[in-house]
Amino acid sequence: MKFYDCSTAPSPRRVRIFIAEKGLEINTIEIDLRNGEQMAPAFRSINPNCTVPVLVLDDGTRLTSTAGIRGYLEAAHPEPNLTGGTAAEKGRIADLQWRIEMEGMMAMSEALRNSAARMQGRALTGVVDYEQIPALAERGRARVERFLNGVEAMIGDKPFAAGDHYSVADIDLLVVVDFAGWIKMDLPEGASNARRWHTAVSGRPSAKL
Amino acid sequence: MKFYDCSTAPSPRRVRIFIAEKGLEINTIEIDLRNGEQMAPAFRSINPNCTVPVLVLDDGTRLTSTAGIRGYLEAAHPEPNLTGGTAAEKGRIADLQWRIEMEGMMAMSEALRNSAARMQGRALTGVVDYEQIPALAERGRARVERFLNGVEAMIGDKPFAAGDHYSVADIDLLVVVDFAGWIKMDLPEGASNARRWHTAVSGRPSAKL
Repeated sequence: MKFYDCSTAPSPRRVRIFIAEKGLEINTIEIDLRNGEQMAPAFRSINPNCTVPVLVLDDGTRLTSTAGIRGYLEAAHPEPNLTGGTAAEKGRIADLQWRIEMEGMMAMSEALRNSAARMQGRALTGVVDYEQIPALAERGRARVERFLNGVEAMIGDKPFAAGDHYSVADIDLLVVVDFAGWIKMDLPEGASNARRWHTAVSGRPSAKL
Repeated sequence: MKFYDCSTAPSPRRVRIFIAEKGLEINTIEIDLRNGEQMAPAFRSINPNCTVPVLVLDDGTRLTSTAGIRGYLEAAHPEPNLTGGTAAEKGRIADLQWRIEMEGMMAMSEALRNSAARMQGRALTGVVDYEQIPALAERGRARVERFLNGVEAMIGDKPFAAGDHYSVADIDLLVVVDFAGWIKMDLPEGASNARRWHTAVSGRPSAKL
């Protein structure tokens, strides 16, 4: 297997942490997104969509989304499970992960990619250049603020986002909260459960990746 | 179990078809989105996010996303599998489903919700009212057109989107293609594989739902 990664980007970090929490060692190749290496012919031949993360399996199968890569790894290496044990747990964790992705991750991407000077003409990842939409950046910021304000209730008095066990919901929530720092946003000062959770998950070795 | 549905909306259709393909019978309650029933106190007490689909499990667990509901049902009722058998299949199907959701479903939602007169002030689902962004509607249309043009290559000579077996990728692709009709977009005329696939999956009893 080969994992195409970018150490400075939030999306591949969601996979890096997942791999570390599984205790797997996968041959990793760094793609320099900041200098556009994802658009160069060499990488384009691996992923025509020009995005990371990518996982290439030994049989040549290429997985080009966080969902696909983590779905494969969870099935191939079930323990420790990161998406739940029972059916109800799997449902709850998928539900929570989805909410974190849509309301947190997507909103953050919209806020950043539609405003940052270095992302002009690159408001979406992929091969097509889309112009920035300032109103979408503004809406994204409002949604990120709302999302961060909601983390306190999401965590409550639980040790982890989905309950007693660390899961993909914690991975994605950590990545979103840290990503929000790029636009100088953070968990509210008084959000004690959210902050207790953030300190705990940030202390895991996987969070250093 | 109780399934909160809306027969006129594309998102719950992704779950309705999934339930039918599993051969399950679930007590279903219709929520009239066109008349705003999702915002009324009765439904708000079931899902504070004011969205459908919702699946309430017998233990009271409430799943409020397509991902969560289908993840639960797939784990609780594994056969026939709709998300793949082997780990590599699971990865490939999750990858494809993700692409269909992001590049097709999301783009369609952006195109419609940011332009339709009856969705003014309702550019996103949920409890917060967001104003329409005309540039996002325009970008959405461009992305839907690009997506529909890509279905021919996605299907190729395979019977189903992910290969030899019907899966969630077929469900979501069918829902997106039919949803595109709302803004008068369709598969290209000459897309013979895409059209052969669409005719076949539309002929399944589940597609009538």
